[in-house]
Amino acid sequence: MEQKSLHQHCKFEVPEIIFGRGLLQQVGSCARRLGGKKVFLVSDQGLFQAGWVDLAIRSLQDAGMKVVYFDQITSNPKDYEIEAGLREYVAQGSDVIVGLGGGSALDAAKGIAILSANGGQISDYKGNDKIHRPLPPLVLCPTTCGTGSDVSQFAVINDTGEMCKFTIMSRCIAPDISLTDPDTLRTLPDEYIGSTAIDALSHAVEAYFSVASSTLTDVNALQALTLLTKSFIPAVQERHADNLEDLSRASLHAGMAFSNALLGIGHALAHPIGGLYDANHGDVNAVLLPEVLKFDFPVVRQKIAGMVNALGYKLESNEKFAEEMTIETVEKILAAAGVPRGLRNIGVKQEDLSKLAARAMNDVCLLTSPRQTDVDDLLGILKRSY
Amino acid sequence: MEQKSLHQHCKFEVPEIIFGRGLLQQVGSCARRLGGKKVFLVSDQGLFQAGWVDLAIRSLQDAGMKVVYFDQITSNPKDYEIEAGLREYVAQGSDVIVGLGGGSALDAAKGIAILSANGGQISDYKGNDKIHRPLPPLVLCPTTCGTGSDVSQFAVINDTGEMCKFTIMSRCIAPDISLTDPDTLRTLPDEYIGSTAIDALSHAVEAYFSVASSTLTDVNALQALTLLTKSFIPAVQERHADNLEDLSRASLHAGMAFSNALLGIGHALAHPIGGLYDANHGDVNAVLLPEVLKFDFPVVRQKIAGMVNALGYKLESNEKFAEEMTIETVEKILAAAGVPRGLRNIGVKQEDLSKLAARAMNDVCLLTSPRQTDVDDLLGILKRSY
Repeated sequence: MEQKSLHQHCKFEVPEIIFGRGLLQQVGSCARRLGGKKVFLVSDQGLFQAGWVDLAIRSLQDAGMKVVYFDQITSNPKDYEIEAGLREYVAQGSDVIVGLGGGSALDAAKGIAILSANGGQISDYKGNDKIHRPLPPLVLCPTTCGTGSDVSQFAVINDTGEMCKFTIMSRCIAPDISLTDPDTLRTLPDEYIGSTAIDALSHAVEAYFSVASSTLTDVNALQALTLLTKSFIPAVQERHADNLEDLSRASLHAGMAFSNALLGIGHALAHPIGGLYDANHGDVNAVLLPEVLKFDFPVVRQKIAGMVNALGYKLESNEKFAEEMTIETVEKILAAAGVPRGLRNIGVKQEDLSKLAARAMNDVCLLTSPRQTDVDDLLGILKRSY
Repeated sequence: MEQKSLHQHCKFEVPEIIFGRGLLQQVGSCARRLGGKKVFLVSDQGLFQAGWVDLAIRSLQDAGMKVVYFDQITSNPKDYEIEAGLREYVAQGSDVIVGLGGGSALDAAKGIAILSANGGQISDYKGNDKIHRPLPPLVLCPTTCGTGSDVSQFAVINDTGEMCKFTIMSRCIAPDISLTDPDTLRTLPDEYIGSTAIDALSHAVEAYFSVASSTLTDVNALQALTLLTKSFIPAVQERHADNLEDLSRASLHAGMAFSNALLGIGHALAHPIGGLYDANHGDVNAVLLPEVLKFDFPVVRQKIAGMVNALGYKLESNEKFAEEMTIETVEKILAAAGVPRGLRNIGVKQEDLSKLAARAMNDVCLLTSPRQTDVDDLLGILKRSY
C-alpha cells in the first residue's frame, strides 16, 4: 500500500469572511463597497419562500442598488442553467453578482461570473486553472451548513451531455466576500441540515487527510470536526440557535480547509454519482464516508491522534482504538442525520459501478488523496458502499 | 472585576499566504503577477549581510523587474525614516513595494505604501481606519519569527516627536501576498530568534484572550501556542531546521489570529515603552507577559482549558492548576529565550511608569483587552513587572 509524499510548501487563501447571526442584512453594504450598481442575485426558490430573498433584496435596495433576481437553478446545477443565467446577466447589464443559497446557487453564481468575464461554455473551464480573466465582484451567502463554496476555489457543475459533474478549480473563483448568517439555518428543513452537515464532515475529513494539507488547513478541518461532533445531534434534534450556529461555523471552517488542502476519494466518487443520478450531494457523501475513512486510515496514521482529539476523545496510543472511535462517531452522526445508507438506496445501479469508478479516476479531487489509488480500489469502495 | 462582553459577530481576513523553505526565490514571480515593473525593496542592513537581499534582488530581476533597494530603516521604525523612504519611492518611480525583514522593515514598507497613496504625514494615520485610498501592491516577506506584520492589518511606527509608538489599523494595509521562507531564520542570531518568538507568543495569548476572538482566530492562536511549546526550546538550543520552521509557522498563525482578534494590555503597554526607550519589542513583551496573563486570568476562565490543552497538558478541571501550568510553560520559554527580565533591565525608569500607563490608555490594543482596565490597573502591572 502506497502513501503519497507530503507537500513541503503550502498556500492558504480565503476571501474576506463575515460571520454572525442577523448579518444577511449587511449584504447590501458588501455589494455596494465592491462597486455594485445593479446586482444580479442568484438564489433558489426554496429560499424565496422562507423570506431570506426578500430580506436580501431589501438590503441591496436600501444600499442604493437595483436588483435582478434569478432563481432558475436546481440542485447539482446544470450547464444550461448557468448559460441561461449568463444571458439574463448580460441582458440586464448587471455589474455585481450575489449568490444566496446552498452550494447549487453559489456554484451557479460562480459559473455565471466565469462566463461573463471569459466567454465560451462552462465546460471549457473544467479542471485546474483554466480561467484567465478576472471575474466581476462576487458576494456569496451560504444558507446551508455544508457547501463551503462561499470560501472555496471550486465550483461543481453538472455536464448534462455527459451526465457527469465536473469541478472547476481556480483561485479566481473564490468570491470577494463570504457572508454567513447562521439564522438562515432556522428555516432549512431537517433533511437538508443533516445532508449538508454531512457534506461539511466529508470536507473536513478529506481535507485533513489530503497530501496538500498543512497546519494552516488542519486547524480549520479539526475545528470543523469538533463543532460537528459537539453540535450536530442537538442541532437536528432540538434546532437550538447555538447548535445551528455551530454547524454554520463548522461548514465555514471545513470550507477554508478544503479550499486550500483540496479533497480526496470521497468527493472524486461523489461527483460522477451526483452527475449520473442527480443525487443529493450530502447523501452521496454520507454513503461513501465510512468506506473512504477505512481505505485511507492505513496511510494517515500520524494524523489519527489529532482527529480523535478533535472528536472529543482522550488521546490513545492504540491506533486500532482511534480508528474505531472515529468510525463510531461518524456512524452516530450519520444515524442522527437520517441520511440514506447504501448506494443502492440513493438510486445507484449496480451495473454502473465500473463506469463510476472510471469517471472518478479523472476527477481533480483524486490528486490530493493520501493513498495511491487505482480504478480497482475505487470500484472496491463503491462495492463495499453499495 | 469586570469582564467585557464578547462580540457576537466576527470577521476574518488574511492576505494570500505562501509558506515553505526555499520559497524566497518566488518573490520575483509574486511581485510580477501584481503588475510590478520597478520594485521598491525595503529591507535592513543585517539581512543584507546574510545574503537574503541578494537572493531577493536576483529573483526580482530574473522576473524582469528593476529593483530599487532601500535599507535606511532601524528597529522601532521612525516617522522620518518612512518619510525618507517615500521620497526615494517617488523619485525612483517605483510601482510595487516588497518588504523583506523583521517587523521594522515590514511596517516601514507599509508606511511608505500608505503615504505614497494617501499623502500627508505618517502620524496622520494613527488609530483605526484613517486610510481611504488603496495602496500600491505589497508583498511582505518576514525573516524573523515574531512580527506577524506580513499578514496583519497593523503597522506600528515610532513618533519621534512624541517618543511614543503608535498603531495604524486598517484593512487596507494587509499586504497582497505574505511570503514566508523559514530558511531565513537560519541566519538570524539567537537573541532575535528568542525575542521575536516571544513576540509571537504574546500575539497568540493576547489574541486568544481578546474580546474580538472567535473560533476563526482561536484555532490559529492555539496552533501558535502548540508549535511554540513544542519547538521553541529545541530551536534555540539546536537550531534544527524543522524546529525553526515551526517557529516561523507559529508566527504566521499568531499573526492570522491577532490581525483579526486584535491584541490587549501587553501590546498597549509595549508600544509606549518601545517608543520612549527605543527598546526591543520582543524583550518588552517578554518582561510584561507573566503579569498580563495573571491580570487577565480571572476573566478568561472559559478559555483556559483550551490554552492548557494547546500547551500539551491534559485537561484538568482545576483552574488554579491550569493557570499555574500556563505560567510555568511561559516562564520556561522565557528562560530558554535568554530575554531580559524586569522592566528595570531594559532601560525603563521608575519615574516614567505613570506616564507609560497613561499613554497605554490611548493605545488601540486596549480596546480588545478582555478585562475592563483603568490607568491604575496598568500602573500596577508595570510596577509588578519592574
